[in-house]
Amino acid sequence: MKLYDGGRAPNPRRVRIFFAEKGVPLPELIPVDIAKKEHRTEAFRRINPAQRLPVLQLDDGTALAETIAICRYIEGLHPHPPLFGREAKQQALIEMWNRRIELGLFSSVSAVFRHSHPSMAELEAQVPEWAEINREQIDDHLLVLELQLAANPFVCGDELTVADITAGIAIDFMKPSRIRLPEDFVHIRRWHGDISARPSWKA
Amino acid sequence: MKLYDGGRAPNPRRVRIFFAEKGVPLPELIPVDIAKKEHRTEAFRRINPAQRLPVLQLDDGTALAETIAICRYIEGLHPHPPLFGREAKQQALIEMWNRRIELGLFSSVSAVFRHSHPSMAELEAQVPEWAEINREQIDDHLLVLELQLAANPFVCGDELTVADITAGIAIDFMKPSRIRLPEDFVHIRRWHGDISARPSWKA
Repeated sequence: MKLYDGGRAPNPRRVRIFFAEKGVPLPELIPVDIAKKEHRTEAFRRINPAQRLPVLQLDDGTALAETIAICRYIEGLHPHPPLFGREAKQQALIEMWNRRIELGLFSSVSAVFRHSHPSMAELEAQVPEWAEINREQIDDHLLVLELQLAANPFVCGDELTVADITAGIAIDFMKPSRIRLPEDFVHIRRWHGDISARPSWKA
Repeated sequence: MKLYDGGRAPNPRRVRIFFAEKGVPLPELIPVDIAKKEHRTEAFRRINPAQRLPVLQLDDGTALAETIAICRYIEGLHPHPPLFGREAKQQALIEMWNRRIELGLFSSVSAVFRHSHPSMAELEAQVPEWAEINREQIDDHLLVLELQLAANPFVCGDELTVADITAGIAIDFMKPSRIRLPEDFVHIRRWHGDISARPSWKA
């Protein structure tokens, strides 16, 4: 296997942290420089028509794109520890929380970054008004996460799951997006301190 | 179980079609009128803090939100026919295609609808420029689907999967979003004709 990797960008980090939490060594990494638009070349489009990173290339040549699809494949090969849950209800709740974070907090932070950060001006048609609308929604998204973490050590209960990786990376991504985490979200701060101290978080 | 349902909106339809394709009878439906903003009430926020539809309420009171989380729960209870795939690689490819369509075509069509349709002006802070940027991306997203369907009867091969439901509903959603499907996407037209003739599509 080979992993087409995008360095410090959020989705490549999610996949590398997932490998680390599973205790699975990373495959050979093929760096793709997003700042140099290497993911926008015709050669890379043939690997992933959506021109996103990361992509896991299997030994039979299959190019597996989309962060969660890659993570789910690794979960299938290495079921323990289960990061997508055990039985049907738990699996469904982890899927719900992972998506709730992706479609809420993660999506809004990404929109702020993509539509307001100067480094993205060359990669995106930036719409400052869209950045502002998303910026205004972030406290509501954070509140949903705060209430969940007030009642649970991790997003889905007593153990770390893929939803914690998604949520933790969304919080990390606030910094380059120039969004402050308000002081009074004390449960998010406790949980984010815990997960970002894990060895996997350096992956 | 009870299903908080949103009528003709795309995500409620995805879930009802999924039940039909599984051959599982729908649970009791609780209609929530999106046009009347019934999903924006405080009472509904306590059921789903993201204030989206549909939501499956389990017999133990658990509120399971997010379309794909609901579908995955039903797949867990009723594994056959498998609409999320059988072994690890096939499951990962179905996850990839489902997400590729959701984050590409479905997301862009939704953005056009939400940010340009007059009926949404009361529900959304509309950004016409964001609608136009998304409108311009739709042919690229369609081309990705067209090339896949040129080589496969269904999105992920010889059998219908959850990715076909997502993609078919995205195509259906183009009509109220006032986006034409170009004539030359002949494989999309053939496949969409096939799936929308299935009994499940009336669900």
